[in-house]
Amino acid sequence: MKNCFVAQSGGPTAAINASLAGVIKGVLEHSDFDRIYGSLNGITGILEGRYLDLTDIFQKEETLNLLKRTPAMYLGSCRFKLPKPEDDIQPYQFIFEKFAEMNIGAFFYIGGNDSMDTVDKLSAYGASIGSDIRVIGIPKTIDNDLCATDHTPGFGSAAKYVASSILEISHDTLIYHVKSVTIVEIMGRDAGWLTAASALARNEYSTAPHLIYLPERDFDTEAFLADVSRLLQERDNVIIAVSEGIRDKDGNYISASAGAVDNFGHSQLSGAGKALEYLVQERLHVKVRSVEVNILQRCGGHIASLTDLDESFAQGEFGVTLAGNGETGKMVTLSRTSNTPYAVSYSATAIADIANKVKSVPMEYINAEGNDVTSEMMTYLKPLIQGEPVVDFKDGLPVYLPVAHLV
Amino acid sequence: MKNCFVAQSGGPTAAINASLAGVIKGVLEHSDFDRIYGSLNGITGILEGRYLDLTDIFQKEETLNLLKRTPAMYLGSCRFKLPKPEDDIQPYQFIFEKFAEMNIGAFFYIGGNDSMDTVDKLSAYGASIGSDIRVIGIPKTIDNDLCATDHTPGFGSAAKYVASSILEISHDTLIYHVKSVTIVEIMGRDAGWLTAASALARNEYSTAPHLIYLPERDFDTEAFLADVSRLLQERDNVIIAVSEGIRDKDGNYISASAGAVDNFGHSQLSGAGKALEYLVQERLHVKVRSVEVNILQRCGGHIASLTDLDESFAQGEFGVTLAGNGETGKMVTLSRTSNTPYAVSYSATAIADIANKVKSVPMEYINAEGNDVTSEMMTYLKPLIQGEPVVDFKDGLPVYLPVAHLV
Repeated sequence: MKNCFVAQSGGPTAAINASLAGVIKGVLEHSDFDRIYGSLNGITGILEGRYLDLTDIFQKEETLNLLKRTPAMYLGSCRFKLPKPEDDIQPYQFIFEKFAEMNIGAFFYIGGNDSMDTVDKLSAYGASIGSDIRVIGIPKTIDNDLCATDHTPGFGSAAKYVASSILEISHDTLIYHVKSVTIVEIMGRDAGWLTAASALARNEYSTAPHLIYLPERDFDTEAFLADVSRLLQERDNVIIAVSEGIRDKDGNYISASAGAVDNFGHSQLSGAGKALEYLVQERLHVKVRSVEVNILQRCGGHIASLTDLDESFAQGEFGVTLAGNGETGKMVTLSRTSNTPYAVSYSATAIADIANKVKSVPMEYINAEGNDVTSEMMTYLKPLIQGEPVVDFKDGLPVYLPVAHLV
Repeated sequence: MKNCFVAQSGGPTAAINASLAGVIKGVLEHSDFDRIYGSLNGITGILEGRYLDLTDIFQKEETLNLLKRTPAMYLGSCRFKLPKPEDDIQPYQFIFEKFAEMNIGAFFYIGGNDSMDTVDKLSAYGASIGSDIRVIGIPKTIDNDLCATDHTPGFGSAAKYVASSILEISHDTLIYHVKSVTIVEIMGRDAGWLTAASALARNEYSTAPHLIYLPERDFDTEAFLADVSRLLQERDNVIIAVSEGIRDKDGNYISASAGAVDNFGHSQLSGAGKALEYLVQERLHVKVRSVEVNILQRCGGHIASLTDLDESFAQGEFGVTLAGNGETGKMVTLSRTSNTPYAVSYSATAIADIANKVKSVPMEYINAEGNDVTSEMMTYLKPLIQGEPVVDFKDGLPVYLPVAHLV
């Protein structure tokens, strides 16, 4: 029997530990696999010798369930991209020697786009040296921007957090009998899925958000001001959802400050909401505020989507099945087989078709004016936020599993 | 039998409708009182003829329960301060004539400091004309800064939201094996109670927040930078809770932008967190971000404190008892009779001793260094966030009662 390694990478979500729990459960129950090791801080834990044996820790169903609904990464994360093998082969050699030494049969990497790049490179290297170690990617990202899968683990919970917050903000905002504009900035650098989820807040009595702007469409400040002015004629309180990544027709971010660049070359954004707040104040002379939902939307474990947690768990388990079947260089993907009733099936797609690609919101999900989403988008989004996990509270606060540390 | 009027004023909380539910329940069950009218947008609804009869709407226990856990103001709010009677007697005459016409026996005003000023003025005017109409204040404010009462309705729920968010932010932040600073800005212009509540996030495995700065102590940027530097030697991730209202020794707000002034003469703040983010970046050259919890902390009905909701309801009910007993010009107050087990009793205090005063955090609740709270503060805070209301969900989102509107 072989052992397995698992690691988590990229930005946190409320469901990435559900996938980890699924991988652990999958390994514990698989007849081909024996022990499951967890690498701390993504792939860097293997490179630096920081990992732990998860096998005994998660024997109890209860502990596994607590892991399932604990936000962010139990194993920690990293923002580390493997060098190209032609530039530096050493880390690849080190990792595969370590795997051999520990009798590893499969490595599961739970992460987003950058993590899938690591899965791609490791599986390609494995193939090049004739290794039989399987490398499987388990997706996660609140951005929902991975290709080849219907939606990504973590997105449904973030969408639920965003929609609940917008609903509560609408209660907070409707109380004053004066004209006001509230701009809510939502995460999503290049893809507008999460901002679109704000539309789920609408119900029989609340039409907020009244305007929605995604990064997939050029942002026109004059059209925006005209939209807001028109709505202010009709109603007291205008609530607007904007993606942090909205850009003008020349591709410049709508931002109150100039951007720095992180170590993946992404621009570090801040302030689309703030920038629009200043703009509305200056041009429309109306009471205005901006709210940045910020990191709370990705770590709000107390209001996660049960659908998301269950599917994330299942994708972790399915990754182990794939490895058991001898698959490698693949990411677990999810197909929606029906909307009513909602149903999905699990399969796998070659990583090379997924890594470093982005799934943007298709144009038919955005209205012609570029200031709202369509009913197709609502049909797509609605099932993903359904259901609530049972959250235990202690001393008035949600109970979570502490982050792992070396013993 | 006389009728009653109720209104809500000031900023939203997650518990101000619990107090309204308590008032309604109190009136429905009181043998001296018949119908209960709700004024829309605080006292302005009476002045402008915008009010509705709540008596029939809330006959069902179920509707009353839904009201109890719906955030913000069912009746809407206002930011309106009555003129001094010597400057303009007209609104006073109008209101009391309206009350007489509608056979009103008691008026309940649920609100914060500015609303208690209205209660004070109306009851004084009533006394001056020999009116037997009772005017009772029911407190609310997430700031917890009303005098003469142990704590204010709405504070416990906001404290629970803040502490839960800090706990989840700590999970989100601990995952990276790199040095980082996270600054969380919490509401509270002059009083640090809510920022102090961030300390409730600490548990067996998480010591976040590692630093806490309240507006009651002068903020010294050099001491702050020294605190952060020292902690960065000891640990990877430093999480800091700061009040939006922190000021330097000369009384200037620590803020990234110059402040405007609202129509009560309060400075409009933005950016203590942002200002410190820039400062840390510039001086300590470490990864840093700021998170503004913003209005979400006052309208997060999905994670309210049951203790808060129950006490807020009871204070509404008790206000009706007071009016029934012929009291006027008083605010319902709450005394803590025991900490273990936690127990409170309800009484009343003359509004004149409360209005326009602020209850700051006492110095013995802040540590000597001014960068944390003491165990006395923890003992005070802990009971206030206990318990969770049962929240119904529909289509994946919390179910609330729509804001009232004229029919």
